[in-house]
Amino acid sequence: MTLHRSFSTSAALSNRCIAYVQNGDPTQVLRSVTFSRLPPPSPNTVNLRFLLSPINPADVNTIEGVYPSKPSLTSNLTSKGLGSSEEPVYVGGNEGLAQVVQVGDGVEKLKEGDWVVMDKPQLGTWSTSRNVSFKDVIRLPTSGLTEAHGATMTVNPTTAYNMLTGFANLKEGDWVIQNGANSAVGQLVIQIAKVKGINTINFVRSRDNMAPLVEHLKGLGATKVLTYDDLNDKSLRTKVKEWTGGKDIRLALNCVGGEPTTSMAKFLGQDAHLVSYGAMSKKPLSLPTSLHIFKNLTSHGFWQTNWTKTHSREEKEQLITTLAEMMQEGKIKAPEHTIVTIGAKESDEEATAKMQDVFANIAQGRYGKKVLLKLEDTST
Amino acid sequence: MTLHRSFSTSAALSNRCIAYVQNGDPTQVLRSVTFSRLPPPSPNTVNLRFLLSPINPADVNTIEGVYPSKPSLTSNLTSKGLGSSEEPVYVGGNEGLAQVVQVGDGVEKLKEGDWVVMDKPQLGTWSTSRNVSFKDVIRLPTSGLTEAHGATMTVNPTTAYNMLTGFANLKEGDWVIQNGANSAVGQLVIQIAKVKGINTINFVRSRDNMAPLVEHLKGLGATKVLTYDDLNDKSLRTKVKEWTGGKDIRLALNCVGGEPTTSMAKFLGQDAHLVSYGAMSKKPLSLPTSLHIFKNLTSHGFWQTNWTKTHSREEKEQLITTLAEMMQEGKIKAPEHTIVTIGAKESDEEATAKMQDVFANIAQGRYGKKVLLKLEDTST
Repeated sequence: MTLHRSFSTSAALSNRCIAYVQNGDPTQVLRSVTFSRLPPPSPNTVNLRFLLSPINPADVNTIEGVYPSKPSLTSNLTSKGLGSSEEPVYVGGNEGLAQVVQVGDGVEKLKEGDWVVMDKPQLGTWSTSRNVSFKDVIRLPTSGLTEAHGATMTVNPTTAYNMLTGFANLKEGDWVIQNGANSAVGQLVIQIAKVKGINTINFVRSRDNMAPLVEHLKGLGATKVLTYDDLNDKSLRTKVKEWTGGKDIRLALNCVGGEPTTSMAKFLGQDAHLVSYGAMSKKPLSLPTSLHIFKNLTSHGFWQTNWTKTHSREEKEQLITTLAEMMQEGKIKAPEHTIVTIGAKESDEEATAKMQDVFANIAQGRYGKKVLLKLEDTST
Repeated sequence: MTLHRSFSTSAALSNRCIAYVQNGDPTQVLRSVTFSRLPPPSPNTVNLRFLLSPINPADVNTIEGVYPSKPSLTSNLTSKGLGSSEEPVYVGGNEGLAQVVQVGDGVEKLKEGDWVVMDKPQLGTWSTSRNVSFKDVIRLPTSGLTEAHGATMTVNPTTAYNMLTGFANLKEGDWVIQNGANSAVGQLVIQIAKVKGINTINFVRSRDNMAPLVEHLKGLGATKVLTYDDLNDKSLRTKVKEWTGGKDIRLALNCVGGEPTTSMAKFLGQDAHLVSYGAMSKKPLSLPTSLHIFKNLTSHGFWQTNWTKTHSREEKEQLITTLAEMMQEGKIKAPEHTIVTIGAKESDEEATAKMQDVFANIAQGRYGKKVLLKLEDTST
């Protein structure tokens, strides 16, 4: 993990972004676009320099055009060609960590050098620089975080925190059950639950050598780690009752769908909430109606993009502050990650080829950890 | 429909109830039990004379022992034999209309002759008489209702009203979509929605001659009546948009489950609620996870028994008052029904045989309308 907080203002450098003109397979449609340095920020805006921006699974769907949250076309990067009014582009990237380079008139709460995260979806974070409204960013309240913490702040930790706190009114000593427990969100659920004294029962896919994964998740604070196969073992019901002391489990988090989720829901007690944030099995959520009627189970979805749209500025700042504090205190680890750097001296052709290659690797599951994109200013 | 409001106090008569000693097939386990007239009510209780009590589908499951709400054993009906402490019985019946015969000391809000409905599940309404706490009944606020209205007040109309008002905050001109629309609850949803100016799209099973059913439901106030087959017709989406003027449908009521419910859910707009109160197809509820995540669909169950447990006396009285007023104003029709009378002169053997026959007919779907039980005092 590296900590880069400096940025260059040398006149010899230009900007770069990773963009696309039309939706499609990312390995085909992504293009590197070099554009001029930004003019000074207009009133109520700030010039940002992106430090590190993740490539999240939803970014792939956004580029494909199958994700419900869509970016706007950008047409003022260049005077002609890609990024101009005649060939507007979508700049990729929804999440990222940026540093404030310059603040425009009327911006009071941000200053040069501040770290910020995005408060608006699809701002186009796969870019060296952007000029955005001061309302579209939230300042990270304190220093002492890694770039990787900051870059991955607004999607996965917020999802985990909001699912844990927004549905069932859980108290210390309560229990949560989840599948896909080794997903990025799943690992954050484990860590945040641990901070709150909430116990977690974590289900993962069975694999040849379970021990390292179990050890990793327990290291994060998992109370119990099991496989989907264990759900079919009838003795599990007795074990779970022993672990919980018979206390009803009132929250289940699901990113899988299909049969393992149906089985997991049967471990829930009266008045519980099943919250789905993914469907990795690509199978629908199937629940016996009797769980709804007689146990008063409520089944929800959670989408951080929707939460952001429907909550106040104050609530969002409070959430980021809370999460940042947990990270500073070492209670939330940054996700395991690989940094892909597009160097200053790489041409747009080289950068385009590299990005398409990155997405080919993502599609084939070659990373197994989060990919964070670092765009250097281009040498011109 | 008949209106019987008198009751006999002749000393020559005794009581009767329909009971069972152990769970099982109603056509096998039900027994008629004759027992003495009740002693005067103890303090804070009332003696009730049941006028009419429905046989609801859930009563069958209760007798079978597969329903989550269970009656208590009764052991004080007789001094020996069935209904005595040595052979306690479960008295059947969850819903019913009763008249207050005598009030005990300390009962202020009820008087002789009042009509009441049950405020506690499984009180054993298939009985001529019971002595119950005044807290276990709710007075019907005014006269002018039929016995059939009163007898069927607490299960189906309450379910329909609470599902319409308790989940989505619907306003006049809004739309509700439901399946099983010709069920007892479905017909009440149509009528109550009509009172509130809410439009209904109603799905029913396709049948050879649809016209009479469509006419009946439209007569109750249905805005649109369609079949599950229509859900597969792609042009339906366009039609629904025309009907609603593009307004999001935010409430779906489901008593079917399976594929027709999955298809119906896809007609819901943003932030909608799917409320399930039955599973007539015996298939689970299967929903694409994306509806939960991206359209913020919430899937609930509704069980009136649970609502009753979790709401205040005042809320329950208000609900009954509201429904009774709609009935008095002719806006809620009593359900189509058949009255089965167990006559005063029928022996327990004859009454037992008749009840077992009634349940055999119910199991074979021979009535097609609600069966209301009228128990005459037995001649002794």
